[in-house]
Amino acid sequence: MSKQIINFLLFCLLLCAQIAASAEQPKERLLGFELETSERQYALEEQFDSLLDRKNLRLWMERLTAKPHQLGSPFGKDVAEFIAGQFRSWGYETEIEKFEVLFPTPKQRLLEMTGPEKYVASLNEPVLKEDRTSGVTENRLPAYNAYSIDGDVTGQLVYVNYGLPKDYEYLESKGIDVKGMVVIVRYGGSWRGIKPKVAAEHGAIGCIIYSDPREDGYFQGDDYPKGSWRNEQGAQRGSVLDMPIYPGDPLTPGISATTTAKRLLAKEAKTLTKIPVLPISYADASPLLRSLKGRVAPEEWRGALPLTYHIGPGPATVHMKLEFNWTLATTHNVIARIRGVERSDEWVIRGNHHDAWVFGAGDPVSGLVAMMEEARGVAALTKSGWRPKRTIIYCAWDGEEPGLMGSTEWVENHEEELSRKAVVYVNSDSNGAGFLGMGGTPSLEQFMNQAARSVMDPKKKVSVLERTKAYWIIKGDAEMRRQARQQQDLPLGALGSGSDYTPFLQHLGIPALNLFFFGEEGGGSYHSIYDSFDYYTRFIDPDFEYGVTLAKTAGRAILRFANADVLPYEFLSLSEKVDSYLKELAKLTENTREANEERKRLIKEKSVEIALDPKEIYIPPPVLSAVPYLNFSPLQNAADKLRASSEGYQETLKSFGTSSARLSEQTQETLNQILIGTERALLRTEGLPGHPWFRHQLYAPGKYTGYDVKTIPGVREAIEQRNWEEANREIELVANTIEGLSTLIDQATAILKPQKAK
Amino acid sequence: MSKQIINFLLFCLLLCAQIAASAEQPKERLLGFELETSERQYALEEQFDSLLDRKNLRLWMERLTAKPHQLGSPFGKDVAEFIAGQFRSWGYETEIEKFEVLFPTPKQRLLEMTGPEKYVASLNEPVLKEDRTSGVTENRLPAYNAYSIDGDVTGQLVYVNYGLPKDYEYLESKGIDVKGMVVIVRYGGSWRGIKPKVAAEHGAIGCIIYSDPREDGYFQGDDYPKGSWRNEQGAQRGSVLDMPIYPGDPLTPGISATTTAKRLLAKEAKTLTKIPVLPISYADASPLLRSLKGRVAPEEWRGALPLTYHIGPGPATVHMKLEFNWTLATTHNVIARIRGVERSDEWVIRGNHHDAWVFGAGDPVSGLVAMMEEARGVAALTKSGWRPKRTIIYCAWDGEEPGLMGSTEWVENHEEELSRKAVVYVNSDSNGAGFLGMGGTPSLEQFMNQAARSVMDPKKKVSVLERTKAYWIIKGDAEMRRQARQQQDLPLGALGSGSDYTPFLQHLGIPALNLFFFGEEGGGSYHSIYDSFDYYTRFIDPDFEYGVTLAKTAGRAILRFANADVLPYEFLSLSEKVDSYLKELAKLTENTREANEERKRLIKEKSVEIALDPKEIYIPPPVLSAVPYLNFSPLQNAADKLRASSEGYQETLKSFGTSSARLSEQTQETLNQILIGTERALLRTEGLPGHPWFRHQLYAPGKYTGYDVKTIPGVREAIEQRNWEEANREIELVANTIEGLSTLIDQATAILKPQKAK
Repeated sequence: MSKQIINFLLFCLLLCAQIAASAEQPKERLLGFELETSERQYALEEQFDSLLDRKNLRLWMERLTAKPHQLGSPFGKDVAEFIAGQFRSWGYETEIEKFEVLFPTPKQRLLEMTGPEKYVASLNEPVLKEDRTSGVTENRLPAYNAYSIDGDVTGQLVYVNYGLPKDYEYLESKGIDVKGMVVIVRYGGSWRGIKPKVAAEHGAIGCIIYSDPREDGYFQGDDYPKGSWRNEQGAQRGSVLDMPIYPGDPLTPGISATTTAKRLLAKEAKTLTKIPVLPISYADASPLLRSLKGRVAPEEWRGALPLTYHIGPGPATVHMKLEFNWTLATTHNVIARIRGVERSDEWVIRGNHHDAWVFGAGDPVSGLVAMMEEARGVAALTKSGWRPKRTIIYCAWDGEEPGLMGSTEWVENHEEELSRKAVVYVNSDSNGAGFLGMGGTPSLEQFMNQAARSVMDPKKKVSVLERTKAYWIIKGDAEMRRQARQQQDLPLGALGSGSDYTPFLQHLGIPALNLFFFGEEGGGSYHSIYDSFDYYTRFIDPDFEYGVTLAKTAGRAILRFANADVLPYEFLSLSEKVDSYLKELAKLTENTREANEERKRLIKEKSVEIALDPKEIYIPPPVLSAVPYLNFSPLQNAADKLRASSEGYQETLKSFGTSSARLSEQTQETLNQILIGTERALLRTEGLPGHPWFRHQLYAPGKYTGYDVKTIPGVREAIEQRNWEEANREIELVANTIEGLSTLIDQATAILKPQKAK
Repeated sequence: MSKQIINFLLFCLLLCAQIAASAEQPKERLLGFELETSERQYALEEQFDSLLDRKNLRLWMERLTAKPHQLGSPFGKDVAEFIAGQFRSWGYETEIEKFEVLFPTPKQRLLEMTGPEKYVASLNEPVLKEDRTSGVTENRLPAYNAYSIDGDVTGQLVYVNYGLPKDYEYLESKGIDVKGMVVIVRYGGSWRGIKPKVAAEHGAIGCIIYSDPREDGYFQGDDYPKGSWRNEQGAQRGSVLDMPIYPGDPLTPGISATTTAKRLLAKEAKTLTKIPVLPISYADASPLLRSLKGRVAPEEWRGALPLTYHIGPGPATVHMKLEFNWTLATTHNVIARIRGVERSDEWVIRGNHHDAWVFGAGDPVSGLVAMMEEARGVAALTKSGWRPKRTIIYCAWDGEEPGLMGSTEWVENHEEELSRKAVVYVNSDSNGAGFLGMGGTPSLEQFMNQAARSVMDPKKKVSVLERTKAYWIIKGDAEMRRQARQQQDLPLGALGSGSDYTPFLQHLGIPALNLFFFGEEGGGSYHSIYDSFDYYTRFIDPDFEYGVTLAKTAGRAILRFANADVLPYEFLSLSEKVDSYLKELAKLTENTREANEERKRLIKEKSVEIALDPKEIYIPPPVLSAVPYLNFSPLQNAADKLRASSEGYQETLKSFGTSSARLSEQTQETLNQILIGTERALLRTEGLPGHPWFRHQLYAPGKYTGYDVKTIPGVREAIEQRNWEEANREIELVANTIEGLSTLIDQATAILKPQKAK
């Protein structure tokens, strides 16, 4: 045995000893619980864990991924009914709630290169003997981008990298105009729906999105079926609905898509693309890219294909013809409840979608089966006498893939009731393995960290929180490393969009969590036919260890929320986040100013003109207007006040439950109503400028990032778009919003506080 | 016409107007010249420029690249004789000075994969119809690494990225030991000779170096013959002599390789590799890399081949058999002089090598023909009556490619005389196009910037200095951009190794310059058969515009040195550099300390062990000894003194020549002797620890970087190697050395100063 291996074993021993020691420590009191109820809750959770069985996850996954089950498909309906049947069998009041949403499916997909050589794209993912369902073609949708408009276009081809605004800025500086052309973009860098949107804004007539092996193919690892990465004919389906405007049914913005709803005409819907768009594999993209000439793409634009990435335009010309069936499809949302015994009008909601693009073993079934097992465990607890204080609602959403159809329509349909009653929404979607991903509203940060601290990692015998902290110490940037080391809690990731929490958080102001494991899996089956049972159980979480760990983790969140004496929100984390967003906004403005100055300096010096090879074209960038100094003081004052308020609440909360005094039912009721109002207070009825469906003033998906969050979006996007007046206006509005929240927090503190003196 | 184009044209107009205006400004007085002689010098240079003819460069390049002309080849001798003939015809006293150096050439090269599949490497660069000389095979050396030892080895293959020490650290942390294996490394990241050296230090038995298309193939641009980048069968020859120990003939370290010299046996020579090493193309590397399994290489290790980069080891096994003819070859150095009329014992030396690996249009003929035209121009000036004050010596070196053979042996042969007489060595090698690359000793910084300010760029009608500043503003890092913007002069690049300035500067302490144009060319013909006339005139400098501009630039350096009243050194730049090197050393120590702390923290936290997938192997790094605080004060004090001395000299120099008073011949003589001694003062006879041939205390090639410079190498490499005692010792020694220089500068100032009062 080498000395290094001995050292390693010694480490392991030491580690075990330390874990054994730490297990002896008394358990921390749970946020929102009194001392005694906290102890009881821990016992309940131990019982809950013992009820969970990994075998169920495997069985259900195999059952649910046997056939394609996209929105509107026969097997999709079957999946919903199976899930509903399961919930009913466990004792849930269960219903399938339906909506009718616009869902285009392909009638014709043609992509051909017409010159300098002829090439017709195969647009086909082949059957693999290693993947049993890859041969199941009945009711299967081919690779396409949902909500692309119909189109029949021919034009010169031009490569535009990720197709982001800055990519077009680069092209403009080189005198390349995409007007009247077909752009080819690679996946990555932004949510896919941004790519055709920005392309259309620059005058392109068509958009091809391809999967470069740099992002999720052989560059990353062996490809499927040898390894887990996307093979040369693997393509990524996906929605290109302009969700940053509004998600859900394009024809019924803001209202639920019931059979009788007043609908827009398709041509009136703002969320469809402006140009036709089609996703292809790199097998189909290579001949096209190889036929481009002109400038060589800058280094950061180049992928991993064995060719020189030229931008063009041309000489390649392409012809693209897309036609869709523009029909309504029925979403089948499974809604299952256990009524709360004390506070049945406070709803703890948990959801995961059930529709897939094809078989969807990873997306969404891995998360779905974990949620089902969690729900089975919760129901089983009731059999031994326990009943939740609050009402628990499990939701299996339909139509998430096309654009959060099921959840959005449901939320819009129950807006009034949800606004009054929902205390939290806990989401999951795809699940991986390794480390806990925790997105969420800051008011749930302490709460969620507590939950993660009490679940053991299945492989390492430390808590999932400890293991995740280790991950951030190793892989995080300096700030993440600092937080993982020096703070008790890990920050929750700010929520943008891309899964069903969006309508809850950003439309209604319901505190939300998004949970998943990540880091040890990896691969390129996303939205392809190879996201299958065979693939998932070979590469992702073969024994559903992390599936069941997700059930434990999310289950704790649900059970604690269901039982807590006081809603387990806190506001210090929120206040810290607001402070840091504010710093970012100031820095963004400063950087914009500096970039402006640098641009002016470059123009004045003519360095580019002097340095430039005379063979090269260079169009000096337009001189931009000066960046004014913004008045951040309203926000700074509001942030200060929020800090004081949240510190006050935190202080009061510490002493809560340590005395034997209890709040009267009436006072509890008042306190809860105030607490429920806190996240709601961060909404503004008018919504955000340019996308009023999004009402949350701190979090929204970016207009030009898609899934990625913009924090304090009203101000941030105004700055990014150099709309200085709007920026100043939004600063005031957001400041008022935050001050409103501070007032509520102070009220909550006042109610909690006197109890201590009793 | 678009508005943008109109804007662009307006810019151009403005630019022309500004240039016209600037042309009217009075010329700055030349460093080292009195007012009047400075004016005369400018006139001489104008005459010089008018004598230069681009056509000669083309003619000579075609003549000199017709056949392979490596060291020891028949055409190499012919090339030397042709050059000598030219110099003689222009009026130079010309001789061919010969040495006999060890130069191995291939007898057998075999590389085959023996499992899991059989593959025999072709090791061949094919003929291309677009490249006329690619079919000339007589006396052509195939791709090989000179000074690889003979070997016949078989072993498992392992991919080690660039093959640098930190790559092996990574492998060790993953439990991968290369002992007894054959490593495959890619070109890049360091000078090639470092790769087999480090591989052998880690126990590898063979080393394959391949050209990845990421570095200089299709990833960068279209490959040859479509474009200028290395094609799939292009291989990079090159020396792997351990030049950081000593360059030149391996058998005669420190002495000249005359026919009668006392020689080491080959096995005694420290500069041969320890293991066999062979360069291959990626056509030959791909099957090998494709047959590796095991861990996927980290992202920054991956190249641009369409495969997943695995590290191995194995299952691929390779067999490599290399045998060389270990014979002596004759170097033919062409040495041509014009004797100085006033100070014939002060030598202004100019050189460029003439040997190539094959045809060598770029390397070295592009620089050589520029030097020849420059020399022709200088000689032509003498025809019109001018004679240089100092002696000018033009040198065309042989055997640079194998390891600076010609220049090193010549310098070693004339060490005593050169130490007394040489006032500057101006080197060139390959020449490109676009921007002026200026490497050199800091004492020549003002001088060289003045020269670059007075030569016009052939394309842009600004001085080459202005154009190069624009380049650094656009492409440089923040510090380079700041300097280019805010300082009159650009810094000279510190000289490491890789061309013939090394023996002059680093062995004898002769101030040196290394000049070339760069930035607009680019490509991958380096050290392949495609570095041809056809290639060069198609892709690099088709009309020899930058060739003739190099002649003007280097010509100015030579003519000014030849005529200056006082040797045009200054020491302020040197003092600034020493200050910044000192800061770097302090920072390096601090970073090492922090890295140490971080490593200890990681080991203590066990973050890696906790985060790690149990499937993965991880060997915790050894705990390193603490980093002590070094005593930098001697160097800080020396640097302070140097600043004061150099400011004093600068001040005095400003007033020199503005009065009509002249120094007496005797005083001039004394002053010059002191000035000649200044760079010599930076040597220490004992040389640097571990490589005593290198005597310069401020600049040496790095032991583990090869060509790349290490500044204050004695201290820096001691810190890098965690040899703290040596670091403290070297700090004192370097401080003494710098103080010695300060004393000399003060003496020079004292001599110059009284003249003002006269």
